[in-house]
Amino acid sequence: MINWKLDLRLLAFIELFIGFLMLIPTALSFRYQEADAMRGFLIAYLGIAIFCSITLILIGKPKTKTMYARDGYLVVTLTWVIATAFSAIPLAASGAYVDYSSAYFEIMSGFTTTGATVLPEIESLPKSILFWRSQTNWLGGMGIVVLFVALLPALGVSGSLLVGAESVGPTKDKLTPKIKNTAIILWSIYIGFSFLQTILLVFGGLNWYDAITVTFSTMAAAGFCVKNSSIGAFGSAYVDIVVTFFMLVSGANFALYYKALSGKISSVFKDGELRVYLGIWAFVSVFAALQLSFSSTYGSFFESLRYSAFQTASILTTTGFATANYVHWPAFSQALLFLLFFIGGSAGSAGGGVKVIRIVALIKMGRAQLKQRIHPRGVFQVRVGQTTFREDLLVSIATFFGVYILTGVVGAVVISLSGADLITSFSASFLCLGNIGIGFGEVGPTGNFAFLPSWIKWFCSFLMLVGRLELFTVYVLFSKHFWKH
Amino acid sequence: MINWKLDLRLLAFIELFIGFLMLIPTALSFRYQEADAMRGFLIAYLGIAIFCSITLILIGKPKTKTMYARDGYLVVTLTWVIATAFSAIPLAASGAYVDYSSAYFEIMSGFTTTGATVLPEIESLPKSILFWRSQTNWLGGMGIVVLFVALLPALGVSGSLLVGAESVGPTKDKLTPKIKNTAIILWSIYIGFSFLQTILLVFGGLNWYDAITVTFSTMAAAGFCVKNSSIGAFGSAYVDIVVTFFMLVSGANFALYYKALSGKISSVFKDGELRVYLGIWAFVSVFAALQLSFSSTYGSFFESLRYSAFQTASILTTTGFATANYVHWPAFSQALLFLLFFIGGSAGSAGGGVKVIRIVALIKMGRAQLKQRIHPRGVFQVRVGQTTFREDLLVSIATFFGVYILTGVVGAVVISLSGADLITSFSASFLCLGNIGIGFGEVGPTGNFAFLPSWIKWFCSFLMLVGRLELFTVYVLFSKHFWKH
Ligand SMILES: [K+]
Ligand SMILES: [K+]
Repeated sequence: MINWKLDLRLLAFIELFIGFLMLIPTALSFRYQEADAMRGFLIAYLGIAIFCSITLILIGKPKTKTMYARDGYLVVTLTWVIATAFSAIPLAASGAYVDYSSAYFEIMSGFTTTGATVLPEIESLPKSILFWRSQTNWLGGMGIVVLFVALLPALGVSGSLLVGAESVGPTKDKLTPKIKNTAIILWSIYIGFSFLQTILLVFGGLNWYDAITVTFSTMAAAGFCVKNSSIGAFGSAYVDIVVTFFMLVSGANFALYYKALSGKISSVFKDGELRVYLGIWAFVSVFAALQLSFSSTYGSFFESLRYSAFQTASILTTTGFATANYVHWPAFSQALLFLLFFIGGSAGSAGGGVKVIRIVALIKMGRAQLKQRIHPRGVFQVRVGQTTFREDLLVSIATFFGVYILTGVVGAVVISLSGADLITSFSASFLCLGNIGIGFGEVGPTGNFAFLPSWIKWFCSFLMLVGRLELFTVYVLFSKHFWKH
Repeated sequence: MINWKLDLRLLAFIELFIGFLMLIPTALSFRYQEADAMRGFLIAYLGIAIFCSITLILIGKPKTKTMYARDGYLVVTLTWVIATAFSAIPLAASGAYVDYSSAYFEIMSGFTTTGATVLPEIESLPKSILFWRSQTNWLGGMGIVVLFVALLPALGVSGSLLVGAESVGPTKDKLTPKIKNTAIILWSIYIGFSFLQTILLVFGGLNWYDAITVTFSTMAAAGFCVKNSSIGAFGSAYVDIVVTFFMLVSGANFALYYKALSGKISSVFKDGELRVYLGIWAFVSVFAALQLSFSSTYGSFFESLRYSAFQTASILTTTGFATANYVHWPAFSQALLFLLFFIGGSAGSAGGGVKVIRIVALIKMGRAQLKQRIHPRGVFQVRVGQTTFREDLLVSIATFFGVYILTGVVGAVVISLSGADLITSFSASFLCLGNIGIGFGEVGPTGNFAFLPSWIKWFCSFLMLVGRLELFTVYVLFSKHFWKH
């Protein structure tokens, strides 16, 4: 059973809501007197108006307000697809992007917090367009649908289904019994950190425009930047440190901040995933810094650490900012960064990828297999932190990892049809799927996606969405069971 | 409980048995009057004699003949480690290899049927040494320990434990109630096919030496060749076709041949894994051939198909022969071959990698997850062919895949310490782990492993063994539970 009328109605409201959020860059286009951008935003409003009139007036009210699991997946996936479709209009209609495929890629990259760009040159674009682009990062970070649930009247069961289909990680933390309250808490923490980062960046000498756009893409683990050479453009150790810190903040489980605010600070530091997450960051940062200083890539160990700690945080949290062209780093440091492609941020964070907790669970599952072989009649459980994972959860985690890798590898084969070499295709596929945004080869920190044919840009947009919604929310729509009776 | 005395005794017998098999190349060294090689073999015999005297005479008979699961893992892993240690002596002691690390790498690559070589130039080596090198391929293909079990008096439970720890695939086919008979059947089929291939190659104009050595490495899905430019050296479409056919034979489940011989031919063609395995081969061969002919890499579609069918079979079955330098093929064809790095041969075959059946199971597990999301209260089973897989088997399959990928990625980081670029490190790690033997970058079809520092050669030997024994048989020895009480 799919409640089409209700689903379309929700979609239309979310679209109106996106239009409301687009008022900010629209105002900026007037403020900066960017006529092309103004035209772009107005065409987008026209599109949204037509879409919403048709769905709200012609289709009419649903007979029942009951939503099923399928409606959740459908609404969330369609929200992302359609929100991107309308949000991309200003980019294409303003002439800032060469075509609509490129604009769609860019905004899907924005909402999914991938941060991969088709722009070879960024700084010449209208400031209002670049602001909107960074703003999509921020909106996608905590989830468009989650924000909608937080702001609108309680949706009851529907709200839970929607948030469940959009949130990341193998298990869903219930902060409060009511999903609306959970959504409000998550977004409040997110806004709080964003406010703090902006202030700190302005304090470091950035103007408000730069500070806000950088914050948008940091807190969302997203990676767009209004500068051609990413965060490296600011050339400031202070900015690097602030951004590194907030990238790490964005890649941790937001439920932990709620726990900390509720006074349960000791339980935060006992969290298994957080410790492994920070441990990986420290390990890779230090070892890369050691090689970078030994190889004289940078002047001193501390200068090396500045760059390695930033780049490690950037890829581990799947942010994708750059302060260094790491494809010229020595092989081992590059390989360490590549290793992070198979990990990702934490569950319940703004980060993408497989998520640290799934990797931890997989390694513990491997250990349980070893014990099983030593004591064939024993039964071994997998505990992560204080929780024992049930067998069906283990199956779902390991299946996720398998399907994730297979999707990435098949994605690389599709991308190779563009003629891109193996390392470019492979890292392009995984950087889209993991919402990382930068990779190796032609899609390294100084590269971009402009060279891909249109249809592969659409395919990459699909990969980004599949990754952001953790595979199954999207894949489920391709199952014939979904469309049965 | 580990029955050390029994385990060491078994090891000594297997070592004696390896010495017995070394009589063939030793005889060849006399026949070809290769003095250096003769010396090499004699030193190896001396080593084996000392080892066996110590273990058989000094340690004495075990008190009980009872073996436990742990003994199986210990004996099998040690057999491979020690058999390689002694078998590598002739290579190093004859001066044919620059050092013992290289010789050990080469023989581990031989027994594990990896087929990766440290030799930049092959044809100048003593023929008896090259014969022994190819012979290790053949011995490893169906399993050294399995051969031992087949030839010696019945070992009862011990035999099952040993064969279980050495055989590949998520489930073990029991052809007959007695493990000794199963071992005899498998080895007989293997010898039968080998005999047939040798005759067909001689019929195609190869001399007996070339025909036998090529057969050794084909039937084992192993990939050593006595020619510098691998199978391409023969420059014969007939040879290419024969080798392609027997590579495909070696990468299929040998239990199917037993079924066919028992008259159950219809059940063979209904086998799910076989159909997918051949399907992947046909799909990749044809699509690569289409691109190769469109891009004018080769003259015609059929010439393209000759090379693509060979190379696809070579990498899918994890043989690693080459008739083309595919790193110069267009990107998509290369990516298709790279995709095969994540698949591998069939369960119960001579091939390595993840195995087709595990990939099939993973995809079906993904589908079951989708159904679960559509009908949250339903219970969905995973069926492969005619069998429903139990949940613990699914956990073990998906865990295997996860640990396999993580091992490969961490392996790539270790190999990158040599300074090798990303694609070289990544493919070197996975070609060792999957026992494939050829990859991309510096370890492509015309490359070799000579450039690696000694300690990384040892690390690669470890990866090959871990892959050949399907991770857990080796990893279990690193678990503290293994060594407890
Ligand atoms: K990103
Ligand atoms: K091989």
